[in-house]
Amino acid sequence: MAEKIGFVGVGRMGANMARRLKDVGYTITAVYDARPESAAEVANELGAEACAKLARVTELADVIITVVTDDKAMLKIFGDKKDSLLKAAKGRVFVNCATVSPKTHTDVEKLCKKAGAASLEGCMASSINQARQGTLYLMCAGDEAVFNQVKPVLTKLSDEGKLMRYIGGAGKAAQVKALVNMVMNINTAGLAEGLGLGAALGLDLKMLMEIFSQTGANSRVLVTDGEDMVNRDHSCFFSAAHAAKDSGIALGVAKTKKLNLPLATATYKQYTKLTKMGLGGLDKSGIAELTFKGRAGKGLKK
Amino acid sequence: MAEKIGFVGVGRMGANMARRLKDVGYTITAVYDARPESAAEVANELGAEACAKLARVTELADVIITVVTDDKAMLKIFGDKKDSLLKAAKGRVFVNCATVSPKTHTDVEKLCKKAGAASLEGCMASSINQARQGTLYLMCAGDEAVFNQVKPVLTKLSDEGKLMRYIGGAGKAAQVKALVNMVMNINTAGLAEGLGLGAALGLDLKMLMEIFSQTGANSRVLVTDGEDMVNRDHSCFFSAAHAAKDSGIALGVAKTKKLNLPLATATYKQYTKLTKMGLGGLDKSGIAELTFKGRAGKGLKK
Repeated sequence: MAEKIGFVGVGRMGANMARRLKDVGYTITAVYDARPESAAEVANELGAEACAKLARVTELADVIITVVTDDKAMLKIFGDKKDSLLKAAKGRVFVNCATVSPKTHTDVEKLCKKAGAASLEGCMASSINQARQGTLYLMCAGDEAVFNQVKPVLTKLSDEGKLMRYIGGAGKAAQVKALVNMVMNINTAGLAEGLGLGAALGLDLKMLMEIFSQTGANSRVLVTDGEDMVNRDHSCFFSAAHAAKDSGIALGVAKTKKLNLPLATATYKQYTKLTKMGLGGLDKSGIAELTFKGRAGKGLKK
Repeated sequence: MAEKIGFVGVGRMGANMARRLKDVGYTITAVYDARPESAAEVANELGAEACAKLARVTELADVIITVVTDDKAMLKIFGDKKDSLLKAAKGRVFVNCATVSPKTHTDVEKLCKKAGAASLEGCMASSINQARQGTLYLMCAGDEAVFNQVKPVLTKLSDEGKLMRYIGGAGKAAQVKALVNMVMNINTAGLAEGLGLGAALGLDLKMLMEIFSQTGANSRVLVTDGEDMVNRDHSCFFSAAHAAKDSGIALGVAKTKKLNLPLATATYKQYTKLTKMGLGGLDKSGIAELTFKGRAGKGLKK
């Protein structure tokens, strides 16, 4: 475990991944965050340096894991003229874990290669607890040689590699992630309709969910989001705004293939509507606000 | 097991339920089907009488299980002036297992009461194999006293009652069934979009399904329909035309509650489109014909 690890973006996901890697014996040398106080806190906890500049992370670490918010942030940390991860980056490997568009991953890979560095997508399909426990579902894409180089590190984040998959060239993991979230969002929006209609009919929703679970209506989101929809508990694990963003990425990809996806489109419209109502910070289960009578969206036909 | 059992509608579901009840010791006395040759065949197999008239079924049986195609057929067997199950029906119990609208169940219950008979909904959320094995998921609704009266019979169809639920008054089981199928159809249509887009992107669909199964995109229909979508194997368990019908029933109910359900609506439109293309006889997984490039619907934006 000779590699020195740096982290860019230490929100709830990034910080927990860093904690996990330290637990298993890696040295976390450098931490950067757009909010310097977050970087300082995590750096202090892990015995790393809180870097004021991105270039300093590159200086201090061999493998740099980035977990930023969106395409814009990704392009900024790799392409900003004043300060960038790619200053004197020769030999460094960047593992990019944010959910961004496939194109951003291919663009970043090009920039890295030009700088003599390497990049890999490490798309995550899990949440905060899994990051802390090192049981992330990790979809990797990029050059296979780069994947093999950082495999030992990523193995420790993905239940000893059991939950790690190599998908293909740059951008491919982002494509798969977009598809996962597109389908997950459809199932979530559909479940909200089923439960909302059940509520309007005065059905016992606990019984209805039990029946859903025994039949063709069963889904992972029934387990993760069903009760929250009924109880109107939308504390955020994966926000409605993120759901809108990810469905939007998938639809953007579909457009390039001239595919017509009416369910994904309807789902995107619902999450966008919720976000425009100022409720984008709710968990994705908050979509039920649009389908239960008397909640924020009233659920009523205009 | 003193009750004599009659069956109206011995397609693949009804015939297998009859076989199961005979296996566990019930006497099947009467069989009727709109296609007399089907009735003759099943009656011969089970040692029952193939009835030419519905009234003859009522004459020969105490408990009559009906499994017909749709609302029209249901209203005909109970309301036809020339020949009906309700001729001299006093004391008989009718268990109606077809998926029809909630209103039809309440209408039929009224007709039965008027004739001195009783009716119960026995909505099924399973398929042919479960019928044969007596492991149907059975949602019952109607008067609770009627439910208790036929419980011993229904227990033998629902894994010793483990898969049997009493839902409430007449029409309630049909409501729940409509909700189950509405959500199932949404998940199916959504899965077809995810796999169709994955195919258009040249992704390994086996890997994609494995990833779906490990993430928030997982669902029962992924297990039952995913491979069939990829392999274009749409041999029918539950037809696309039925899917369109059931989503339509749910939307009809939603309309009475003034609920706006965009996902259910988009799904209904997809299954209706498929049916209008002459492909309503395909399994519900056939919806992938609309989302995979180069298949029947071309999947292309017009």
